[in-house]
Amino acid sequence: MTVQRRFVLAERPVMRAPRASDFRIEEAPLPEPQDGEVLVRTVFLSLDPYMRGRISAVKSYARSVEPGETMVGEAAGEVIASRAPGFAVGDLVRGHLGWQTHGVLPADQLRRIEPAGFPLSYYLGVLGMPGRTAYFALLDIGQPKPGETVLVSAASGAVGQLVGQIARIKGARAVGIAGGPAKVAYCREIGFDAAFDYKDKDKDDAALVAAVAETCPDGVDVYFDNVGGVIHDAAMANLNLGGRVIICGTISGYNRLEQPDMGRRHLRTLLVKRARIQGFLVTDYAAREAEFEADMPNWLKEGRIRYREDIVDGFEKTPEAFAGLLEGRNFGKLVVRVGADPA
Amino acid sequence: MTVQRRFVLAERPVMRAPRASDFRIEEAPLPEPQDGEVLVRTVFLSLDPYMRGRISAVKSYARSVEPGETMVGEAAGEVIASRAPGFAVGDLVRGHLGWQTHGVLPADQLRRIEPAGFPLSYYLGVLGMPGRTAYFALLDIGQPKPGETVLVSAASGAVGQLVGQIARIKGARAVGIAGGPAKVAYCREIGFDAAFDYKDKDKDDAALVAAVAETCPDGVDVYFDNVGGVIHDAAMANLNLGGRVIICGTISGYNRLEQPDMGRRHLRTLLVKRARIQGFLVTDYAAREAEFEADMPNWLKEGRIRYREDIVDGFEKTPEAFAGLLEGRNFGKLVVRVGADPA
Repeated sequence: MTVQRRFVLAERPVMRAPRASDFRIEEAPLPEPQDGEVLVRTVFLSLDPYMRGRISAVKSYARSVEPGETMVGEAAGEVIASRAPGFAVGDLVRGHLGWQTHGVLPADQLRRIEPAGFPLSYYLGVLGMPGRTAYFALLDIGQPKPGETVLVSAASGAVGQLVGQIARIKGARAVGIAGGPAKVAYCREIGFDAAFDYKDKDKDDAALVAAVAETCPDGVDVYFDNVGGVIHDAAMANLNLGGRVIICGTISGYNRLEQPDMGRRHLRTLLVKRARIQGFLVTDYAAREAEFEADMPNWLKEGRIRYREDIVDGFEKTPEAFAGLLEGRNFGKLVVRVGADPA
Repeated sequence: MTVQRRFVLAERPVMRAPRASDFRIEEAPLPEPQDGEVLVRTVFLSLDPYMRGRISAVKSYARSVEPGETMVGEAAGEVIASRAPGFAVGDLVRGHLGWQTHGVLPADQLRRIEPAGFPLSYYLGVLGMPGRTAYFALLDIGQPKPGETVLVSAASGAVGQLVGQIARIKGARAVGIAGGPAKVAYCREIGFDAAFDYKDKDKDDAALVAAVAETCPDGVDVYFDNVGGVIHDAAMANLNLGGRVIICGTISGYNRLEQPDMGRRHLRTLLVKRARIQGFLVTDYAAREAEFEADMPNWLKEGRIRYREDIVDGFEKTPEAFAGLLEGRNFGKLVVRVGADPA
């Protein structure tokens, strides 16, 4: 008999990195869909840095997961039972199923995935939330112009690798910051004009500032910030007149959300450079998905966007993979393969 | 015989407040205008916080004044000799004459003041640079909507008093932060919906945050920041979703421009609130002055904008008045009356 397995939050990590043991596996009979609901078998589970905020009690843009509750997250899977019109057994879907092998959702919380020749996992990455994040944050807030320099941190990650390539498509110069030589080499391989390794430099502010200056000899027009912290400071030190800084993530501070993010404030830089720092959240762009859908699948098919995933096999490895994500141990978009891919 | 008196920078104040003795008075024969030039007798001299940056060696948006050079500043005065078409003896003008009793400028660096029933000093304030600063920074970057809350620091100052009143004209709620009960009372008198005194609170972050929360019960939609520092932090702690923070001045750090402006960075707040912080410099709006000219003089005549000046008599008091400005000893827009007002 098939059972549902799920991870619930066992303990909130406070002022420390999350550990696999912060989550507890539970089993239950397979849930049955009620009228208007659909039962989905998870094929791929998305692991994303924002989840660190969800297991913190600090007030944010979304409700925190309480201990004992199933951990949240988006998944792509296959319909195995449906009591909703428009969804049939075998349909491929995505939705916020959480860290579960199977889940029931109301039909209006599921999105159908129409076969288009892409791997199913792509709908959790380049064709999903991270893709829309890179696309809308860079184009709508960053507004890169041809010839400008776009700097991005976590540049080989789910969002960063796309930011650099979209910047290039728009005629800008793309510069990446990544952790370790392999990730830096990958950035160059997919078309970044320059990239550097922040490791060994992140204890030395001046070295970071110099590395940005060296890779961005004309200064930084757009800084796509996925990390905050000292790398943010180094980017700010190289900001051009009219520069735009997109705060997309602050992962360097995710294990201490309970404390203010201390550091140089750069108010004076903003004034002198008439620059702006602006926060971004992808959910604000739900009404504009058609713009993304008109571009990204074509860019992928044309080979203008390349995309790297880091696929972990086995649902039971989810908590450990998540802990690794916060330490940068993944290389590319992190997903967990939970069940057989019907494709 | 009339002589020209001027203040030159004697010593750069580094990591300290400026003192009157940082400037030295010099005398010279009255300069003679060459072809295309105009000799102006200063009537009013404007003293503004930005001048602190000009006597610092720290790189900024304008060249620093070097020791031995005449101190920069805008003045309004009367033409006493002209070798330029379009300017005649007795004309009223304004321009960057510096801290001088008399000065020669090329005609294209002078602006004629057409008599319109306003005091001459107004063209250095509400009808001049501070007026345009309040107008464009609030309307173009802050973009207050009816019913929103606009918070402004240095609220009884040259710019702040106008920001609150323009916010009210646009249907927003205006809240002021000022130093001392008299300035707070003035904010209320000219129509601010609420105001509070930051003194005695600026050593206590929680008290500042609470004072903002109390005067802005619906949160802060626009924070017009003239000061930076701990007041900035308190405003950020109360920022609403989609909030806009205008960095117009950072006076709390003007005596330590050589150091980074340390404090809470608030990157996380920007992300969570999808808010933005943006720097402003009035010179970027030179091409849009007609918008300002269409509104501000009418608002003044209609009594919709009230305006307070702090007029110091006597050119020799300029350095001391400037030192007081940096300590908030002025009450309203600070100007020095240098010579007899022809009006």
